[in-house]
Amino acid sequence: MSDAPASSPFLAAAHGERPSRAPVWFMRQAGRSLPEYRATRGTGSILDAIAQPEIAAEVTLQPVRRYGVDAAVLFSDIVVPVHAIGFGIDVVPGRGPVAEQPFSSAADLERLRPLEAEVDIPYVIETVKIARAELDPAICPLLGFAGAPFTVASYLVEGGPSKTFAKVKALMHSDPALWEQLVDRLADLAIAFVTAQVTAGAQAVQLFDSWAGALSPSEYRRFALPAATKVMAAVGELGVPRIIFGVGTGELLADMATSGADVVGVDWRVPLDAAAARVGNLPLQGNLDPALCLAPVEVAEEAARDVLRRGAAAPGHIFNLGHGVLPETDPGVLGAIVELVHAEGLTLRDQGVPQ
Amino acid sequence: MSDAPASSPFLAAAHGERPSRAPVWFMRQAGRSLPEYRATRGTGSILDAIAQPEIAAEVTLQPVRRYGVDAAVLFSDIVVPVHAIGFGIDVVPGRGPVAEQPFSSAADLERLRPLEAEVDIPYVIETVKIARAELDPAICPLLGFAGAPFTVASYLVEGGPSKTFAKVKALMHSDPALWEQLVDRLADLAIAFVTAQVTAGAQAVQLFDSWAGALSPSEYRRFALPAATKVMAAVGELGVPRIIFGVGTGELLADMATSGADVVGVDWRVPLDAAAARVGNLPLQGNLDPALCLAPVEVAEEAARDVLRRGAAAPGHIFNLGHGVLPETDPGVLGAIVELVHAEGLTLRDQGVPQ
Repeated sequence: MSDAPASSPFLAAAHGERPSRAPVWFMRQAGRSLPEYRATRGTGSILDAIAQPEIAAEVTLQPVRRYGVDAAVLFSDIVVPVHAIGFGIDVVPGRGPVAEQPFSSAADLERLRPLEAEVDIPYVIETVKIARAELDPAICPLLGFAGAPFTVASYLVEGGPSKTFAKVKALMHSDPALWEQLVDRLADLAIAFVTAQVTAGAQAVQLFDSWAGALSPSEYRRFALPAATKVMAAVGELGVPRIIFGVGTGELLADMATSGADVVGVDWRVPLDAAAARVGNLPLQGNLDPALCLAPVEVAEEAARDVLRRGAAAPGHIFNLGHGVLPETDPGVLGAIVELVHAEGLTLRDQGVPQ
Repeated sequence: MSDAPASSPFLAAAHGERPSRAPVWFMRQAGRSLPEYRATRGTGSILDAIAQPEIAAEVTLQPVRRYGVDAAVLFSDIVVPVHAIGFGIDVVPGRGPVAEQPFSSAADLERLRPLEAEVDIPYVIETVKIARAELDPAICPLLGFAGAPFTVASYLVEGGPSKTFAKVKALMHSDPALWEQLVDRLADLAIAFVTAQVTAGAQAVQLFDSWAGALSPSEYRRFALPAATKVMAAVGELGVPRIIFGVGTGELLADMATSGADVVGVDWRVPLDAAAARVGNLPLQGNLDPALCLAPVEVAEEAARDVLRRGAAAPGHIFNLGHGVLPETDPGVLGAIVELVHAEGLTLRDQGVPQ
């Protein structure tokens, strides 16, 4: 599917090959902290902006132009598929995805019909095509993404963002058969969502199991990993690299590595050399603490160097933050980080893990 | 200092001795989820209730009466010392500790004078004495506690609860000398706070470094552990067992075990057998997911049994939640957990870690 030569730094690192320069992109680079994003998007629901291909493609491309990052990531949201099939979910500014009628019983399964991408999300397909046409695939591939079934389910069941995930944990433990049906439908939605993106031109895919770290390892293995693995298997047939990522997943990394992912994303809590020991022979992505991008730039830069050295423990390393860009981040700091990764990345990698 | 015989189940387990029954208590058992607590305390700031010894002692004792737990924990708050010396901090219902004028520069050090317990917090001393007189030390010791310097500093610097800890991380990295002065003063405050509690009759101490898990291991070692270790060393001279606890500390457990703690508390993300391998030869406390106490009681009970089996990997185990009791918890579920731990705990411990 991908016609990008493996020589683009991002794809080379994702394949565990030595890139021509250390690749870097930032989760949530498209949007939030960029003034040109706020000017383009205006106010209103993010889902409205996502549904306008010219705007969504522009927002996708803005960080590439500003920072010179090694990957563009589609401006979209993990709830786009469930929104598009009419589950009844919106993204409330300052709060996040909110479902007016949460998923609570078997009857709610009917609210999760299959996604017909050409009919339900033509704007996503169009956005990918527009953005892709503006990018040089030998330098900057376009990443697609989807939410992993557990993480999307958490919004549907809790009705919104949660600190405790109490309702979703109660459901999975007390009615595991219904839970399996729920995440299986969400797996099919994720597969349809990323298949549409890759078919339209996306050259890699990240699966966001953002909140998997709220689960214990045994819960993750039983209730989240199987559906994530189903998505990964389907994406694997599309022939593009697959990244899996979540926050607070230190205890889960070894299991996440069994999902079929080609690259494992790591949050900032786990040093990459420690992560490499758990993940085994896969490239890693991460993991500068996004909070340090709000500190003086020298602090962020020194921390970035440490990340680059520790990343040498993995067979490949794609530099990123350990979570999404914080809205209040100074774009100048991210620009400095990109420069540093490009200028010093391979040298620091060759120096290797600090003893 | 302690005149409780080591035969109380809690103290036996804390010392790594076999208790007469598996001991259990719950972080935040005093307050929040109990209807008798809400009736006693009424509305208003929690700091007002803490300052009334009869009320605070009553709230301390309520969970002992209702649940038959193996330890009473002082009804207090980690910001009591900084509040008492006039830093200017309150606990806002539904939000948490809020400092109107956050700590931001060396000039703010003057706002952190030493604590004179008899003058500044006589009500804490009185509360301990009242509660202690009502407890049988051979069965139910009274636990005191303090906030660890990093965690208290996070409230002072951020001005309130934080998701990112961006300001506190910026301060520690950009002005480490000021940071050291800040946490050193907070260490002295914590020492004075728990010394007053132990002198008045508290028989063990827990140091809450609740948010340490937001730090990377190298940040924890450099910016949080030294001050926590100072507190632990001073408490050690008081001759009572010391527990250290934080959330999301999977990567930090081995370092936390070097703090001087006698017992390491573990959140629900790390199975206790995995925690034991990192902590080494210390008893553990934890770690039932508090969210599971909102699931059907059978779910919570089965998870509790798993905790008890895995706790066998440590030389001692004090059953607890992996974080504080959630406000919406049904007290009946906690009661069932206490019954289960008492009835089955030692048997499950003897069965040992599931393979």
